[in-house]
Parts: sequence; C-alpha cells; structure tokens
Amino acid sequence: MEHNKVYKSINEKDLSHFRNILQPDRVLFSQSDLQRYSHDETEDLSYFPEVVLKPTTTEEVSKILLYCNELKIPVTPSGGRTGLSGGAIPVYGGVSLSFEKMNRIISLDDDNLQMTVEPGVITQVLQETAQKKGLFYPPDPSSRGSCFIGGNIAENAGGPKAVKYGVTKDYILNLEIVLPNGSVLWTGANVLKNATGYNFTDLIVGSEGTLAVVTKAVLKLIPYPQKSLLMLVPFRKMEEACMAVSEIFKKGVVPSGLEFMERDAIDWVLEKIPQLDLNFEISDEIQAHLLIEVDGNYETELISDCEKIYSVLEQYDCEEILFAEDSIQKDKLWAMRRRVAEAVKAFSIYKEEDTVVPRYHLPELLLGVKKIGEKYGFKSVCYGHAGDGNLHINIIKGDLSDSQWNNEVRKGIREIFELTARLNGTISGEHGIGLVQKEFLDVVFDDNTIELMKDIKATFDPNHILNPGKIIP
Amino acid sequence: MEHNKVYKSINEKDLSHFRNILQPDRVLFSQSDLQRYSHDETEDLSYFPEVVLKPTTTEEVSKILLYCNELKIPVTPSGGRTGLSGGAIPVYGGVSLSFEKMNRIISLDDDNLQMTVEPGVITQVLQETAQKKGLFYPPDPSSRGSCFIGGNIAENAGGPKAVKYGVTKDYILNLEIVLPNGSVLWTGANVLKNATGYNFTDLIVGSEGTLAVVTKAVLKLIPYPQKSLLMLVPFRKMEEACMAVSEIFKKGVVPSGLEFMERDAIDWVLEKIPQLDLNFEISDEIQAHLLIEVDGNYETELISDCEKIYSVLEQYDCEEILFAEDSIQKDKLWAMRRRVAEAVKAFSIYKEEDTVVPRYHLPELLLGVKKIGEKYGFKSVCYGHAGDGNLHINIIKGDLSDSQWNNEVRKGIREIFELTARLNGTISGEHGIGLVQKEFLDVVFDDNTIELMKDIKATFDPNHILNPGKIIP
Repeated sequence: MEHNKVYKSINEKDLSHFRNILQPDRVLFSQSDLQRYSHDETEDLSYFPEVVLKPTTTEEVSKILLYCNELKIPVTPSGGRTGLSGGAIPVYGGVSLSFEKMNRIISLDDDNLQMTVEPGVITQVLQETAQKKGLFYPPDPSSRGSCFIGGNIAENAGGPKAVKYGVTKDYILNLEIVLPNGSVLWTGANVLKNATGYNFTDLIVGSEGTLAVVTKAVLKLIPYPQKSLLMLVPFRKMEEACMAVSEIFKKGVVPSGLEFMERDAIDWVLEKIPQLDLNFEISDEIQAHLLIEVDGNYETELISDCEKIYSVLEQYDCEEILFAEDSIQKDKLWAMRRRVAEAVKAFSIYKEEDTVVPRYHLPELLLGVKKIGEKYGFKSVCYGHAGDGNLHINIIKGDLSDSQWNNEVRKGIREIFELTARLNGTISGEHGIGLVQKEFLDVVFDDNTIELMKDIKATFDPNHILNPGKIIP
Repeated sequence: MEHNKVYKSINEKDLSHFRNILQPDRVLFSQSDLQRYSHDETEDLSYFPEVVLKPTTTEEVSKILLYCNELKIPVTPSGGRTGLSGGAIPVYGGVSLSFEKMNRIISLDDDNLQMTVEPGVITQVLQETAQKKGLFYPPDPSSRGSCFIGGNIAENAGGPKAVKYGVTKDYILNLEIVLPNGSVLWTGANVLKNATGYNFTDLIVGSEGTLAVVTKAVLKLIPYPQKSLLMLVPFRKMEEACMAVSEIFKKGVVPSGLEFMERDAIDWVLEKIPQLDLNFEISDEIQAHLLIEVDGNYETELISDCEKIYSVLEQYDCEEILFAEDSIQKDKLWAMRRRVAEAVKAFSIYKEEDTVVPRYHLPELLLGVKKIGEKYGFKSVCYGHAGDGNLHINIIKGDLSDSQWNNEVRKGIREIFELTARLNGTISGEHGIGLVQKEFLDVVFDDNTIELMKDIKATFDPNHILNPGKIIP
C-alpha cells in the first residue's frame, strides 16, 4: 500500500530481537498465524502482518515499541479482532501486537467500585466477574463474548445499555499507556472526577490505537440494577417505530435499552440462526420492531415506567406487545438482537454503516436511507441503538455487480453520511473510523479539524508507527 | 512575571485595532475596569490585564485571536470570575477576553433534549430555562448563580449532583471553538455517542482556556427527576461520617447528593450568614455532618433507598437525623452547604485545596490532613462532595504569621497532595489547576506526562498566547 512514510520490513535480525524481548513462543510468523491476525470482522478485508507478538507485561510492550519506533516498523494493536471498521487490520504489515496474553483482572475493588484490568480481558468475563459482587460494567457490544476491553477502549464501544448508562469512556477512570518512544505513564487518577491537567484519558479512549498502546485500565463500576422489564413492540410502519423513540424520553422515561430492528433483521435471525429457538410469528404487515427495556431496583417503578411507555405506543399503529415473561425469554430476545449482524452476514456480503443522529431525527434518517438506496439501487437493512440515535445501516450486496458495489454503493454511502451530517449527526457512533470510514471523514470535519487531528497524531507518534492507515484520510 | 516567551505590550495602535473589530464600548481599559478583571475568587490574587475585550460573536473572537497570535499578545478568557484556581487571572497582562456579552441561549431542543448556548450564559439561568421544560442540566457548582457555563467547561466543574449525574464533561456534546490562529471549528457532533476521530470535545473541557476558546456549546439535558428526599445526619466522629459514605454505595444506593461537612463549616455558616435563618442547634460532641439526597420519579423508591441508607447509618455513632420536611427546608439545607466557602472566607484568609480520592479512602485522607495540619501548625476545615471522594480542604490562616503561611503551609499542602496521590487520588477534582496548583502538578504526574501536556499545548497554541501561566509548571 502506498504511504508517504517509509516503513522498514521485518527481517531475521528483528525477529531475533523480538525473541530476546519475549519468550520465543510469543513471536509468531507462520502463514496460518499471520492469516489469523490479518483481519477482524470488517467485510472481507485482509492484510497480513509480518509478525505477531504476544507480550505479557507492560515492560515488554515498552521494549517492543521503543525498538519499532527507532526502526520505523509499524505496530498494529490487536484485541479480539471483532471490530467493524478495520481497526485491528495491519494495513502496512509490520507487527500485529496481540494482547491475548495480557488478560488478567488485576483487582476488583468493591470498596471503591473499581476494577483494574489488562487490555486482553474479554468484556463478558469482566462483566460477569463484577456481577458476582453485585456490580455492573454497562458497556456491552454485541461481540462481548469475544471482544477485549482493550478493543472496546480503542473504539469507545457502546452497545444497548449506552442509552441509559453511557459508553466505554464513561467507565474508564484511568489508563496505563505506552507511548511509541517506550515511555509508560498513567493518564489520570482512579477517581470519579478530575480537573488535573489535560484529559488524556478521554483522548486515548476512542483513538483506535493510533496514539498510544493501553496496557492497564481502571474501570468504574456501579451497583447492579436488580430488576428489569423487557418488551418487543411490532410496528406496521418503520418510521413510526423511530418516531416513538424520542416520545418515550419526552415522557420522562430513560429506558436501559431501546433498540430498533427492521423487519428483515428479525426474519433473517429466525431463518439463519434457528438454534435460538425463537418461537414467534410476525404478521405480514409488520415493518419494524422496538425492543424496550427498563431497569432499576424496584418493580413498581418499572411498571410505572412501562405505563408511560404504553401511553406513547398507543398513539402509533402497533400490534400486540410481547412481554418477556422470565429471564429465559429476556435472554432469547436479547440474543435475537445481538445476533442480527451475524444473520445479515450469513445472508449476503454487506457493508455496515454506524450512523448516529440526535434521536428525534431518526425517522428522517431512516426514510432518507431508503430513498438513497432506491437512487443507487441497493437494499439496506437497518437496526441499532435507537435510544441514542445510533442506526446501523447494513447495505446488502445481494445481486449487485462488483462494479455497482464498488462505485454506486460508495456514492450512496457518502450521501447517507451527508444526510447524517445535515441532521447534526456523525458517521460513527461506536464502531470507529478505522480503515473503512476514513475516506468519508471530510463529510463531518473540515480541513482545520483534520489538520488538528494530524498534529495530535504527530505529537504522540512522530514516526507514525502506531496503527498506520487508520482514522486520518 | 518572568516568562521565557516574550509577550508584546498593548499600545494605542492595538487598542485602535480592537476598536475596529469590536464596537468601541466593548474595549475597556480604565483602571477600575482593569481592576475588576484582575482577579477571580482565588485567595487575594490580582494581576491586571492591559485591556478588557467583550466580543459579541464568534467572528469577533476569531479576529481578536488572529491578531493577538500574530503579535504575541496574551489572551486570558474570562467568565463569571468565580474560579478557585486562578484560571481567569491574566497573569501576563494582555487581553482579558470577557464573554459576558455572549450570553444567549441559542436554542432549547426539547425533542432531542439538547440546549445550545454561548459561553457567557450563567449556569443557573440555563438550568432554570431547562427546568421550565421539565429538563435537567445537573452540573451545579456552588457559584451557579454567577458562574458562566464557559467557565464550567474550562474547569470541568462538578458540584453536589456529580455523584449520581456526572460532571460538566458528561453533559457537553459538542463545542464550537476558536484556535489561536483564528480558525473556527466544531469538536464533534450533537450526538450522545461518537466514535468519529479524536475526542477533541473532552480534551477542550477542563483545559482551562489554554488550548482554544469556546464560543458555543451543545449541552445534553435529561428528564428532570420529580421527587427528592434530603436528610442531614450528625456524626460524633468525623471519620465515621466518611466511612459511612462508601457503605451507602455498597448497599446499592446511588444518592443524588452526598456531602460531608466538618463541624466548623456549619458553625461558621450559622454565625456568618444569619440571614439564611437556619433554625437548628448542634450538640457539642458532633464533629461532622453528612447531607444526603436521593432523587427519582417515585416516592416509594426513595423511601426504600432511605431505608437502605438508615441501615448503614445505624452502624455508626450518629445523633438524630434531620429530614427536610418541604422544599423550603430542602432549599435552606442546600443553601447552607453552598455557602460554606463564603462563611469560611468571612472567617479568615484561607487556601482551598480540592483533593479527590477513591471514596473508601476518605477517612484516611481526612485523618491524614489533620495530622499534617498538626505537624505544620495549621487548622483546616474540610467539606465537600464525599460521594465522589472530593474533599475540599480549607486551610485557615487565622493567627499564622505570613512566613508560616507562605512556607510551612506550602510544605503541608505538598504533603496533603502526596497523601492524595498515594491513595490513588489527585490534586483537583473540580476546581482545576490554574495558577495556584501548578507548582504541585509533579506530585501526580511524572516528567513524561508533563512533557506530553506541553506538547499538546504547543500543538494547539504554538505562540503560547492562550491563558499563559496556567496548568503547566
């Protein structure tokens, strides 16, 4: 791939140096290993690294970066490789720096409701560890069973609970990071509020591994809410499902989940993932569903919230609401929502866009997407975290020719993003820019802002060794 | 004041240029005007600017910065001048850039629960505007009746609601900023989640006017909680009051306010602010109080929360709990808490430290502060937002000699901050570093981090014209 920075290729001497830093079996370069680290979950993209390194300590990470920085070897941090913007793909080869061996939960401090972890901990593992102490780590991407907290930090991951509880950055108190020059520092302190110098913590979160490498994170936990109610609401008109979303907040209710799913999304889950054993029929005229959850500590409160939600729903053309009867049914409905992306993938090659707008503008975004699809001849299936205005738009390849797919669809995506920007939204809510969205960054940022991003990048990483080819066009 | 950057003094030609940019009556330089903008609420510090400029538009701000940047004239943004770290004091003279004429609420979007404001809006004014629509802007510094939202953004202000609702940064969706070179840009989008490029929004919040000047802010609002309960709990041992704090969270309750006040703090309010008409007696053996608020939409829920809180309190040596009977009594109790700083100021010259630690470590911090006070011969009065571990330590000058005040007390402050750091805390929770704490920044950050701060500063502001002399030692 062309690049104005010249990177050095890895040779036998480099490998031997890496084998001095790490145990030799943490230095991998067989074709099958390189293949495994060449991709994440983004489309069908694959770029091979030249070596995979699996450090076990911050010190090892520091030595690796120091060496690579001096020799201008690119380093792409790698987590669970479940990303959807290509963040973990080593576009320029070099080192794939995998954190799977740095996967310790260092401490769970239930006096202070904090947890200190290494970046390789699987999100669901840390959630369940917290839950055993009655504590809650809310950010909850669909991939939580395999994604790493380090990757969540890199992309500022969200998930269905974000609408009430916020995204990853709202739960990161402090980070240990390694700069390209090998220096190790903590970004902040283990506190709930901080007005001490520049906020490096929130700058690193969401920077997609382009500024520094995270080696430890101190997470904020909260008391686990003890009760929840979950309902699935079928709408005859998809735009009405979107309209109901902002009305619910206007009633004073903040749901703990408020998900939108277009008809096809559910149909495909029913068809492609039969093992979920979802036992329900959808009548022909249903265009979309909302999955709505409220949580808290008191049942009566939740019932009152549901009554307010009903008072909104009855203004729209809905069919009968399905109320989850028990935790098994709740789990099934959530599993259905979580596995939409997988079902879409089983159905066709697709591109997933991660638009986000102020939530009242969702109907306008949805109808606009359909119109743009008609114009450029593509079908889309939309779903996502409607409560915070985050709509995942899956553009389906289906029978499109490669030329349509690579040319017309790309124009359509730009138009979708331009619509998003006009609605005061932006082009990624939780997936990041990574490799696949950087060509569209100019839709939402002018040259001044992009220049400032370049300057910040150069301040942290003057040799551009960290995750090159990402974010900045 | 010495400085390695050479700043230009303002002359008649500059004034005439400013009078071309602004209406002439927005260019002030009488001694009384300069005196007014020479200080904020920090100790008795005063440094005169050479001119006060009061722009009314972003374009005017841009022209002022462009001019000052070219000629190396220092520019210190100025809000309500209620700050406690000297952030608005023009240490190097030059321009005091006052935002009092940029005080419009541009829009209140109750479909999307957002408000767009100029930086000169008084925090209480925007809170009350939101409340009329049933909406809540939680960050709530004690100075809310006179501080500006721009200053809150600069210092990442907190206040008593932060324990449940978070600090200023949690309510800033997007900022219009002007860079020293005059370029104007938006940092993000008006959305609840954002994974699109570097998080400039959270970098600007809390940067104390040293990186860019904020000219518009899009705030997130939430539905206003409809009910609250408030209690004042007297403790015979001050450390037990602190111990109770973390126990309350461990019961699964997240109060909407959890304030600690040492005995003297309340006594001095009763004595110095009699007009509050606080009608209660404190028995001799009481050392401290907790003021505890819970809020929500349902009374039964709040009563259940209070029962859980009682179950904690009954383990400690408390006297009878005072329950606020109505909104008038609630307002009085909150006014008492809000006016502690004013009462302390009326009592003696003092220095206020803004320590923050993980909340379980509060008792250790409090006892440590008292021990350090004994060692260096000073008295302190502590109070603050105990729920998020934020303890304001007021060091009282009283009968201390100037030499003790300037030498021994300074050593004591360093020891307090060192203790804070050992407890995984930091030296400012919500007041900022500004002028008065920068000499202590090395207690919590090593050289690498301070160097990185300098690099970030230089990236945004290569001529060091924006609020020079602040944050960085």
